[in-house]
Amino acid sequence: MLKTRFTEMFGVEVPITCGGMTRVGKAELIAAVANAGALGFLTALTPGSPEKLVAEIKKTRDLTDKPFGINLTILPSINPIPYDEYRQVICESGLKVVETAGNNPAPHLPAFKEAGVKVIHKCVTARHAVKAESIGVDCVSIDGFECAGHPGEEDIGGLVLFPVTTAKLKIPVIASGGIADARGLVAALALGCEGANMGTRFMATKEAPIHEKVKQALVANDERATDMIFRTMHNSSRVARNAISQQVVEIEKRGGAKFEDVRDLVAGTRGGVVYDSGDTDYGIWSAGQTQGLIHDIPTCKELVERIVSEAQSIIRTRLDKLVA
Amino acid sequence: MLKTRFTEMFGVEVPITCGGMTRVGKAELIAAVANAGALGFLTALTPGSPEKLVAEIKKTRDLTDKPFGINLTILPSINPIPYDEYRQVICESGLKVVETAGNNPAPHLPAFKEAGVKVIHKCVTARHAVKAESIGVDCVSIDGFECAGHPGEEDIGGLVLFPVTTAKLKIPVIASGGIADARGLVAALALGCEGANMGTRFMATKEAPIHEKVKQALVANDERATDMIFRTMHNSSRVARNAISQQVVEIEKRGGAKFEDVRDLVAGTRGGVVYDSGDTDYGIWSAGQTQGLIHDIPTCKELVERIVSEAQSIIRTRLDKLVA
Repeated sequence: MLKTRFTEMFGVEVPITCGGMTRVGKAELIAAVANAGALGFLTALTPGSPEKLVAEIKKTRDLTDKPFGINLTILPSINPIPYDEYRQVICESGLKVVETAGNNPAPHLPAFKEAGVKVIHKCVTARHAVKAESIGVDCVSIDGFECAGHPGEEDIGGLVLFPVTTAKLKIPVIASGGIADARGLVAALALGCEGANMGTRFMATKEAPIHEKVKQALVANDERATDMIFRTMHNSSRVARNAISQQVVEIEKRGGAKFEDVRDLVAGTRGGVVYDSGDTDYGIWSAGQTQGLIHDIPTCKELVERIVSEAQSIIRTRLDKLVA
Repeated sequence: MLKTRFTEMFGVEVPITCGGMTRVGKAELIAAVANAGALGFLTALTPGSPEKLVAEIKKTRDLTDKPFGINLTILPSINPIPYDEYRQVICESGLKVVETAGNNPAPHLPAFKEAGVKVIHKCVTARHAVKAESIGVDCVSIDGFECAGHPGEEDIGGLVLFPVTTAKLKIPVIASGGIADARGLVAALALGCEGANMGTRFMATKEAPIHEKVKQALVANDERATDMIFRTMHNSSRVARNAISQQVVEIEKRGGAKFEDVRDLVAGTRGGVVYDSGDTDYGIWSAGQTQGLIHDIPTCKELVERIVSEAQSIIRTRLDKLVA
């Protein structure tokens, strides 16, 4: 047991989340995370329609009786996405927590509040976290520079971003990015956070619905095997380093690139071809610097049990002795 | 008291260093750090000659009876620097610890060993830390992405770099970069380090021999007020953001810059004009992301006492309760 304001707020056993990961946050993984005592999030948009999300929620419920949530990532899109319908599915699902990301969740908050759905908002800057608290979200998940996916444009490492953010907020804060084991979890707790999000780490579990070769790549890669791309487009993304990401980096180095300049290169991203095929050189795919901390492919239960046991040992044995 | 392998190895009371800072690591600051129970380092090259270093060591000894060390930064230079003479000064000083940085310290190790001087080598990558251990240094100080000065070219945040490094080494590791308070110190200890280095934090102390206006700038600035410059020259430097650093960034954004392209802009750096004059807009000066964690200008003693007291409280009150 590791009891924090986070575990109490969401009724889970351990202060660990498996936040929304597009094309990865599916029923089998999120149920396994729930059964391990942590809090996982189905990604609302991954199934493909509000109706399919209803089915994915049902599928997850068939696999676990424990709490889980839905990630609703709100992004500008060429093809309009029916966010209100997704929100309605979440509100009617009986699930009690949603993770919002990508844009200000304010328009959706009244409906979530009325349905008794607590909101964790993902941010990448302290001032957005302060703003999120002010509009009434229940919890913030703050992403540091080390994270996979979208760390924003300010490049503040978690060691600094976490304590800066927790000092400004009253609501619980979840540390995200750069954490994959008990050492990182205890560090996050010491920095004032109430829990830690682990995306890349949960990709390298038995239950993650991605090709075995992707998991093996996460184990084989070290902490340096990522690239920050799309910086010149103000849409920075940390992805696993491969020949494609390196080509994008080279194009961007020559000066301000436009999406058209790299469109063909990154087309492989679409449809999660890499996750399905296991061809890690085929296209762009997300992975964080925590690759350097991932050395095996356990079940979610093995992983969470290990983290909790080692966290207890770090606190009770290592840190307590230093104070003696 | 916070007892670690670091405090035992170097005979100091707290696992905190004030590592070498050019033009800042002078007698008055380093003696104050020593008197506070931490381990500070005079910068060998700052006084200007081996003879002047002898005088600076004497001046420091007049101000403290406690241990302190010397930083010897080995860099390629147009004007040859008499490193062997500096080394001899250190070996004959009776001081028991040197912090090496900048280049492989191997040529200097036999002399230090014979003189009973322990070596802490500063690294910015895990593989250089492994190499340093293999050639026989006693301790490694590892600098993460958040740090002031030279974080290297790999951009690994301390949250990841620290545990990756400590897992590979047997000798004690000091966490450097992104740490300015008890929360960061406990995080570093949880991540497997035996102590924490705090450069920018010690610049904002009463005893730091820099202009009051520079200290006030460190307090006023937030975590975003740095720029990473000289990336295109493979000599990345994290500096306080000002009009000059922003101009350098703009020049570098246009594509691979050469030093000649920015020479006139950064000339103000030389001679520590900013530190002496307090004109923080005049030239380039170093500061880390920890600016976002610095809110006052205490004495070194007040600072170290506060950190130790709060670290004990984080371990004994906050973390212990979570395990209960």
